[in-house]
Amino acid sequence: MKIGIIGLGLMGGSFALAIKKKYKDRDEDLEIIGYDHNPQHCLEAIELNIADKIADDITELYELDLIIIAIPVDSIIKVIQELKDVSKNTTIVDFGSTKEKIVNSIPKEIRENFVAAHPMTGTENFGPKAADRKLYKGKIVVLCNVEENSKEHLLKAKRVFQDLGMKILYMDAKEHDVHAAYISHMPHAVSFALANAVMAQQNPKDILAMAGGGFRSMSRTAKSSPTMWLDIFKQNRDNLIESVECFIKEMQIFNEYAKKEDWEAMNQWILNANKLHEIL
Amino acid sequence: MKIGIIGLGLMGGSFALAIKKKYKDRDEDLEIIGYDHNPQHCLEAIELNIADKIADDITELYELDLIIIAIPVDSIIKVIQELKDVSKNTTIVDFGSTKEKIVNSIPKEIRENFVAAHPMTGTENFGPKAADRKLYKGKIVVLCNVEENSKEHLLKAKRVFQDLGMKILYMDAKEHDVHAAYISHMPHAVSFALANAVMAQQNPKDILAMAGGGFRSMSRTAKSSPTMWLDIFKQNRDNLIESVECFIKEMQIFNEYAKKEDWEAMNQWILNANKLHEIL
Repeated sequence: MKIGIIGLGLMGGSFALAIKKKYKDRDEDLEIIGYDHNPQHCLEAIELNIADKIADDITELYELDLIIIAIPVDSIIKVIQELKDVSKNTTIVDFGSTKEKIVNSIPKEIRENFVAAHPMTGTENFGPKAADRKLYKGKIVVLCNVEENSKEHLLKAKRVFQDLGMKILYMDAKEHDVHAAYISHMPHAVSFALANAVMAQQNPKDILAMAGGGFRSMSRTAKSSPTMWLDIFKQNRDNLIESVECFIKEMQIFNEYAKKEDWEAMNQWILNANKLHEIL
Repeated sequence: MKIGIIGLGLMGGSFALAIKKKYKDRDEDLEIIGYDHNPQHCLEAIELNIADKIADDITELYELDLIIIAIPVDSIIKVIQELKDVSKNTTIVDFGSTKEKIVNSIPKEIRENFVAAHPMTGTENFGPKAADRKLYKGKIVVLCNVEENSKEHLLKAKRVFQDLGMKILYMDAKEHDVHAAYISHMPHAVSFALANAVMAQQNPKDILAMAGGGFRSMSRTAKSSPTMWLDIFKQNRDNLIESVECFIKEMQIFNEYAKKEDWEAMNQWILNANKLHEIL
């Protein structure tokens, strides 16, 4: 198998390490060809054994078995226009965090080849050095609008995600973006806001000296790179705004109960929150 | 050493397991006498080797070397009125999550004996079965208004926290409560609100099927018991309301930027949030 990876950061790099391990264990041939606009990432990817070689031009990926696109959503939308002329046998899989705009911009020539995927994993770190072979294992991947893929390309993509040890969910792209706003994008905004609320105080250092595990867990994602998250926030703006409003409403309900000292109502509100973990 | 523990739940139980291990390693004598209104907790504490025996009446604790009070704040305020007549050699340490009201309600007879402490640790679980010997190790404990303690009692309390492997911070009780609102109480409200925002959607199961590590970390504390948290929210109401308002303001700023598509301002806002981790 020959796999091209566009974007050699956390997601692309982790993918390469995981799939290489799998193929090595099975004693099967695998070649990874990396492609990244950042020359430093290309160098690091070779050093870290993420890529076996680097393509200087995107056309070098046209005859591969599989192309993984692991870059921000706005860049995905641009780069897929340059992939119109790939071989009929090349499966393309993108790892974008929002799906509707991507699905709507896939050139018709490669619509059958193009499997729109969102692996629900990541860390607050970025770049090839952040790559982690275990990033995907046991995690969810959402595949969107697969009825537009040919059987053969879908099968290849599914096998790859199974090789990574992922659980596959199927969803409409529009529905995916609404759900992703609630489960990932809005919570990231919450983590940034939590950090900013503390930083806005007179003495953030004195406050942070008291930080326990709870605060650390909740503010961990506030480390995340603005480059990546601004892109996601832009791409999923409407759903995001709605989910943030829904969340703010819950915070206001909480503060109303506190102001009115309506502890019985707050008790019910907390019991309702507790129910989340009956599902999760 | 003879130690009485009032409250045999997560905090009291974990304390007992940790201190027992320490004394066993040093081959020193230690006896733990438990006291809890919940007979089931008393039974479990004996079974789990948390307590060596159970006191039926609080007066049985009056001559011990140390009394740890690990119950909700409103119960602490009640129980300390019953401890007025302890021996002059008995050190009392409470583990309450808010400190100002407790400090203001300590009977003058035991003011020198009473060390007001807040160990900055915990989990979303509760009861003796949740006890974990490593809960305190490496964590922060805040001691408040220690200038009102006698040297001897303060020293005994400090030694105990050092035995647990904790780092000691000193703080004014009023200041502690403001900081605790930002670092612990408001973030818990945020976690409950996050859970409720998802539960308010048409299809929470479909959304939660996509949950990755980030959402799990942020909503973990939404499992926490209302009994304990209502008490904390009541005791620290004014600081809590203010910190929640400050947090809501940050969420509203975020949503304003999104609505106006002012991505440059949002970029700065995220970069400011990133700075938290230069301190933390």
